[in-house]
Amino acid sequence: MKTLNVDLGERSYPIYIGQKLLSQAELLTRHIAGKQALIVTNETVAPLYLEKVAAMLPASIQHHAVILPDGEKYKNLDVLNKIYDALLTHAFDRSVTLIALGGGVIGDMCGFAAATYQRGVNFIQIPTTLLSQVDSSVGGKTGVNHALGKNMIGAFHQPQCVIADTDTLNTLENKELSAGIAEVIKYGILGDEKFFQWLEINVEKILSRDPATLAYAIERSCQNKADIVAADETESGQRALLNLGHTFGHAIETSVGYGGWLHGEAVGTGMLMAADLSARMGWLNKTDVDKIRHLIKRANLPLRPPQNLNKADFLALMLRDKKSLGGVIRLVLLKKLGHAIISDNYSTEQLHATLDHFLGEEI
Amino acid sequence: MKTLNVDLGERSYPIYIGQKLLSQAELLTRHIAGKQALIVTNETVAPLYLEKVAAMLPASIQHHAVILPDGEKYKNLDVLNKIYDALLTHAFDRSVTLIALGGGVIGDMCGFAAATYQRGVNFIQIPTTLLSQVDSSVGGKTGVNHALGKNMIGAFHQPQCVIADTDTLNTLENKELSAGIAEVIKYGILGDEKFFQWLEINVEKILSRDPATLAYAIERSCQNKADIVAADETESGQRALLNLGHTFGHAIETSVGYGGWLHGEAVGTGMLMAADLSARMGWLNKTDVDKIRHLIKRANLPLRPPQNLNKADFLALMLRDKKSLGGVIRLVLLKKLGHAIISDNYSTEQLHATLDHFLGEEI
Repeated sequence: MKTLNVDLGERSYPIYIGQKLLSQAELLTRHIAGKQALIVTNETVAPLYLEKVAAMLPASIQHHAVILPDGEKYKNLDVLNKIYDALLTHAFDRSVTLIALGGGVIGDMCGFAAATYQRGVNFIQIPTTLLSQVDSSVGGKTGVNHALGKNMIGAFHQPQCVIADTDTLNTLENKELSAGIAEVIKYGILGDEKFFQWLEINVEKILSRDPATLAYAIERSCQNKADIVAADETESGQRALLNLGHTFGHAIETSVGYGGWLHGEAVGTGMLMAADLSARMGWLNKTDVDKIRHLIKRANLPLRPPQNLNKADFLALMLRDKKSLGGVIRLVLLKKLGHAIISDNYSTEQLHATLDHFLGEEI
Repeated sequence: MKTLNVDLGERSYPIYIGQKLLSQAELLTRHIAGKQALIVTNETVAPLYLEKVAAMLPASIQHHAVILPDGEKYKNLDVLNKIYDALLTHAFDRSVTLIALGGGVIGDMCGFAAATYQRGVNFIQIPTTLLSQVDSSVGGKTGVNHALGKNMIGAFHQPQCVIADTDTLNTLENKELSAGIAEVIKYGILGDEKFFQWLEINVEKILSRDPATLAYAIERSCQNKADIVAADETESGQRALLNLGHTFGHAIETSVGYGGWLHGEAVGTGMLMAADLSARMGWLNKTDVDKIRHLIKRANLPLRPPQNLNKADFLALMLRDKKSLGGVIRLVLLKKLGHAIISDNYSTEQLHATLDHFLGEEI
């Protein structure tokens, strides 16, 4: 087992990465301060791991589970309310610990419930998808979607710990694994060129779920994320780099309807669009754009948005991004492979060219 | 105009108290950092003050208003969502400032929307009821009710400033004024005996809305609250003293259904119940209980809960209070007039005696 630390002063916490972690009850119980716990999971994950996680809790901790429907389209205020219902029905108090058992949707919703139940209670992340292990479970971003925009309602709320058991990835669908790899590739592109080169060699081993390769990819991704989050917890600056591919990606996700594309799939295509615009600006060279496209392709991720998206609608969705300020879309773009920047200093004409290229019929 | 400061380090903010403050645009605009503002108000307050507040904003600030239905029963996630709808419909970004124009319900909901929109934006409180001017607008507690418990969903989020224009109290219903006086009296009982004595002399002048008397009552209340909040922003200790009367009071409010009783009315009766239990414990003397009852009565507040409440149900509601831990109801009780404590060290038998006394037929 590898332990990384997210260094946030009194809100610091460990990330445990490795195999068979759900058999080590102590990893969980040492982070539960009170005598009450609510496990938040979904219909897909519950049959696989709920019993195992519940068995980690001793009889002295009163615990229940709430099982939500599975999918991004259920990440909303109505479904969130089911967590509050469960907490109040069991008369759980401020000492309760919430345990998020599932992917990014479960982690975000459970974390937001923890941020807001009685104005804030503890929670623990047990991510069971590659995407949540490398990205969404770390860093304290929590929230739900609104019909008019993704992740528009939320809070920063750090967990007590993250338990990333790589064995849980064995039950993951291939499509979900690829979506997770998109976020792994992201860390390489935005700031860790050596990791990108390692991925160029090892992406097929990740797809075949080789435990050691998976563990290294998760560890290096989490280390990258932990460093960025520690430097900028509430995204007043550099943390926004983690949004590489997300402004384009969120527009895709919202266009096709929540759940139509997996978040990681949209981020993969979004990164290609960001790379394309960066190349049109003369920042990124053609060879690196091709390298990025090739790696995304080998990860079995889509290379373009679905057809029939309207450019004006797409731009309006991009403008709803949380980085936008004063009617200007701010984007994470690439000065070179391994060096991302946050910029509103791109040419609007080139942005249109990128959109025409990706939204048009030929590509 | 009097200016008090709530001292919370980088989250410090001023409270402006006085007449004609809504004619001083600068008080508002100096606290708006961006170029966007959303005024959140209700159907009762909008016809009275919305135009006036909107006129304080220069043309350079894009602003809109959202008008919610009036009343505690609308303080829920569904109505909260109307604020998010408005923010997203107008494509407001992270630089937006929300302006809460109304009583405690509007302040709590607008504040919670600000705490959670795009993971946190600025907001300003313009309280228009006595209760919100002396209590709910100060201290950063925000949130909504859940069908199973009051204020169960929320966050700590401090405003940029509080503008308490005492002229707005001229349009307040008598019942609302009395409800506000309950919270004013609370500060006297819990920690400021001199203020209690001042109130014994001046309560009728407050009821008659004498401007100087009102201003002093608000200022002294806010000073008491600001001192307590500065010492314990997130209620890990002493801040819970501000909950005097609230555990009993919330049980009354939930029993009769949100909106059946005004919050301040329930707090007034709740303080009498807390005083009664404190006397049964031998802490508070009979003379002081009588003084408290007499002052509450002179403020035209109810002296007992509605009839036909069931004791077991009432206890179950009290247990849902946020101070409860491990199945034990913690209460704010009185060691003497002007000295409240947080305690679970009362006799359960005496608590039952208090409930029998207040919920029973004779009183």
